[in-house]
Amino acid sequence: MDVKAEDFFFGGLKPGNTTNKLGSSVNLVNVDKIAGLNTLGISLARIDFAPFGLNPPHTHPRATEILTVIEGELYVGFVTSNLNGGGNKLFTKLLKKGDVFVFPQGLIHFQFNKGHTNAVAIAGLSSQNPGAITIANAVFGSKPPISDDVLAKAFQVDKKTVDWLQAQFWMDNNN
Amino acid sequence: MDVKAEDFFFGGLKPGNTTNKLGSSVNLVNVDKIAGLNTLGISLARIDFAPFGLNPPHTHPRATEILTVIEGELYVGFVTSNLNGGGNKLFTKLLKKGDVFVFPQGLIHFQFNKGHTNAVAIAGLSSQNPGAITIANAVFGSKPPISDDVLAKAFQVDKKTVDWLQAQFWMDNNN
Amino acid sequence: MDVKAEDFFFGGLKPGNTTNKLGSSVNLVNVDKIAGLNTLGISLARIDFAPFGLNPPHTHPRATEILTVIEGELYVGFVTSNLNGGGNKLFTKLLKKGDVFVFPQGLIHFQFNKGHTNAVAIAGLSSQNPGAITIANAVFGSKPPISDDVLAKAFQVDKKTVDWLQAQFWMDNNN
Amino acid sequence: MDVKAEDFFFGGLKPGNTTNKLGSSVNLVNVDKIAGLNTLGISLARIDFAPFGLNPPHTHPRATEILTVIEGELYVGFVTSNLNGGGNKLFTKLLKKGDVFVFPQGLIHFQFNKGHTNAVAIAGLSSQNPGAITIANAVFGSKPPISDDVLAKAFQVDKKTVDWLQAQFWMDNNN
Amino acid sequence: MDVKAEDFFFGGLKPGNTTNKLGSSVNLVNVDKIAGLNTLGISLARIDFAPFGLNPPHTHPRATEILTVIEGELYVGFVTSNLNGGGNKLFTKLLKKGDVFVFPQGLIHFQFNKGHTNAVAIAGLSSQNPGAITIANAVFGSKPPISDDVLAKAFQVDKKTVDWLQAQFWMDNNN
Amino acid sequence: MDVKAEDFFFGGLKPGNTTNKLGSSVNLVNVDKIAGLNTLGISLARIDFAPFGLNPPHTHPRATEILTVIEGELYVGFVTSNLNGGGNKLFTKLLKKGDVFVFPQGLIHFQFNKGHTNAVAIAGLSSQNPGAITIANAVFGSKPPISDDVLAKAFQVDKKTVDWLQAQFWMDNNN
Repeated sequence: MDVKAEDFFFGGLKPGNTTNKLGSSVNLVNVDKIAGLNTLGISLARIDFAPFGLNPPHTHPRATEILTVIEGELYVGFVTSNLNGGGNKLFTKLLKKGDVFVFPQGLIHFQFNKGHTNAVAIAGLSSQNPGAITIANAVFGSKPPISDDVLAKAFQVDKKTVDWLQAQFWMDNNN
Repeated sequence: MDVKAEDFFFGGLKPGNTTNKLGSSVNLVNVDKIAGLNTLGISLARIDFAPFGLNPPHTHPRATEILTVIEGELYVGFVTSNLNGGGNKLFTKLLKKGDVFVFPQGLIHFQFNKGHTNAVAIAGLSSQNPGAITIANAVFGSKPPISDDVLAKAFQVDKKTVDWLQAQFWMDNNN
Repeated sequence: MDVKAEDFFFGGLKPGNTTNKLGSSVNLVNVDKIAGLNTLGISLARIDFAPFGLNPPHTHPRATEILTVIEGELYVGFVTSNLNGGGNKLFTKLLKKGDVFVFPQGLIHFQFNKGHTNAVAIAGLSSQNPGAITIANAVFGSKPPISDDVLAKAFQVDKKTVDWLQAQFWMDNNN
Repeated sequence: MDVKAEDFFFGGLKPGNTTNKLGSSVNLVNVDKIAGLNTLGISLARIDFAPFGLNPPHTHPRATEILTVIEGELYVGFVTSNLNGGGNKLFTKLLKKGDVFVFPQGLIHFQFNKGHTNAVAIAGLSSQNPGAITIANAVFGSKPPISDDVLAKAFQVDKKTVDWLQAQFWMDNNN
Repeated sequence: MDVKAEDFFFGGLKPGNTTNKLGSSVNLVNVDKIAGLNTLGISLARIDFAPFGLNPPHTHPRATEILTVIEGELYVGFVTSNLNGGGNKLFTKLLKKGDVFVFPQGLIHFQFNKGHTNAVAIAGLSSQNPGAITIANAVFGSKPPISDDVLAKAFQVDKKTVDWLQAQFWMDNNN
Repeated sequence: MDVKAEDFFFGGLKPGNTTNKLGSSVNLVNVDKIAGLNTLGISLARIDFAPFGLNPPHTHPRATEILTVIEGELYVGFVTSNLNGGGNKLFTKLLKKGDVFVFPQGLIHFQFNKGHTNAVAIAGLSSQNPGAITIANAVFGSKPPISDDVLAKAFQVDKKTVDWLQAQFWMDNNN
């Protein structure tokens, strides 16, 4: 009813703080930040990378992502679904400034800054609320932890290794 | 079948040439440029503005647009639908670098660089093929022209004015 | 819970009053008039035309329209999106009683009664709330007005002409 | 590629021939008749009724229907889904000229001309290919016939009655 | 907000009571039983059959069904839509344990246990709230009843037969 | 055109071979196995578990899964998306025969047979082609391998450990 310009506005998709273990920072502008996105099926993100910063393997359960590099370079990739006898293919590309890459909905993907300078990317996502699942965090950092019987069998390591991994701090680079 | 990384890649969302009447240039990366976008419901655009450049009133018939300014400043706005007794409201905002704005699906919107420096924006659009209808071009520059009986009545001007408008060159800033 | 037949009923899609500048009147039966249409993705309209009446260039941001003439004749048309080197094509047809025409989602279209008798059309629209944007009203009659810098540049006219247009009364033929 | 106005046009949604057992005739303009409807999610129908003509109980498996009476009067109704302890409710209404009624997707509905004059309705349907299942025809007139074991048990009649019903001619009033 | 595991859980898709006229029982786990299904577009059902039990001709107005037999055997079928000159085709199959069959959205279908032992099926449905319309119940058991003028004409029987059918008890095998 | 019952049928969702490292086997009936599922938005799977068998952490990029246990017991769980300050929550449940559980679209989930007897589940999935990404296989078993720089940083282990993991055989339990 009482709609106004501010309902379609978010002020300050600022450079993120990348002084962390991963050397990266994701700032997603979804329907929580712009109420006017409701039912409109889209959101936008800025991703900052320190030198050798990594946006680690993750998925968006409800969105495809299309990304362009606006500063620096990024080595990016995604892995396909299981397929009869030929799945889990890795597709990668080194993106220079102005290059564009697509990460299809729900597939595991990453972006890695192999260079000595900062890198910045802008991405569109095909959902008002795409979600983000950082694989390591969800698998080894869930609350409560997943049973180590399950993880030891799934990852072909002993339980001690699983327990050690679960004891680490799994930072979330999503702001 | 024979999918490869290149099917998800577009190389070089370069700065557009803005030395034209409008002082702007749109470069849309849709499914025509990245075949892997098929069925994925998203695309991405870069929009360049010379000083006082304008991306004139237009609509995307099949997409909502979410835009962020990565260089300079932009004055942006959209107009709502007709509503019983209160439609055609104009919502505007002056966007600084890092600000984000949403243009809901199908609504008439524009972006204008009021400043003396260049401006650049990156936008996500919620369709693999959003389309773009530049209002002036579609109304006064269609091929063949719309009957001047129709346009004179619709725009409350005489036919001579319509004919003069239809004789102008209506440039398309979409590349 | 307490659903009843009246929730799926609207009484009286009556002939509209066409004694106005445009000589036309649109009566749209959307979810505001029939609550039971919620989530069902459709609505219906009746459009009346006096002799030489015009339903001026407009779009429906969320719907395709399929129309049939039930009385008189109508000259109708729509303009396609911008396309690389060949867009803004005008498609027109003179519809006699019983003829059917489709206006694809979001495209600018019009209906014009070229004849000396009344004309009436019935249209289905593919949304419970299709919206309607009358181009002239949204561009020259928005509240507040769009900056005349923007409109003068977009429509290749001087600011005085824009100001004159913005001072006109832009009637809304949607009831 | 080579799109033209005719791809969006169907000429002659004419009065149907109602001199048949049911006294009704349906003329549906779907994507088979207008190729340009592809992916656009809508179609249109004209339904003619002789005095006491019936469009018998049927469903549209892929569409909601919104109908208006343009001549005569129609007694219309639909039946809701099974619900715990309270389903199969019948909602009916006598529609006069200009009245509008909605038949939600997949529900069994009918239109009946109780009067001594012809009646005509125009309907919008929320699919490019809504389909139509005339209940009596599908149940008793399928090719090959449904096993009379199934139908006798389902309809609580003896097999002789089922066989008699299956031997009738089940006309299709869809043109 | 306060989501918990129970929101995604339903305890006890138990064997249904098949000691009824139809010899069958349907237990549908939809969004009413698992709140977490909201917006997720799927539900699940268990269907039990006594010897010679029948899940009578019915439709799901908002879902396709995919079914597998986990005990016994089932004779299943569906009827296609009306088509110009060739509709109302019956497709049937005798399913053994482990066989899978699809009933497309909105089409009339049935499952019949021709054997002397019980049969059990599990089915997925493509909606959080698929609905179920048992044809005989909706046609002859609605509340209030459909006019016998309508039904006599539609089913080519006299009104006395319609009245007799409407006086029967139409049980609902959906739990 | 030449549609037949076989287009909607798959014969033999048989018990899978679980004599493998994981002790589990998934048999998914998607559009590759039943052509008639095309555009219908659903598929069905049978999952077999040996004692202590595991269907390891995985996602379906394009589908929600609803599962019921038809033999034995299963310990199941899923992990939510990252959320500001409170994501990566693990939801688990021990399912007995007849219990039902939902795994929302794109979330990482697993099923584990903690018991000394076999277990069997049937699941519906909300896509004709849901896809399956086994996390360990996609991360450590992709072809070609993901750079060990990326994985060492993402999983907080040294490159030797990553290389050892990438040298393992990552079996696919999807048939």
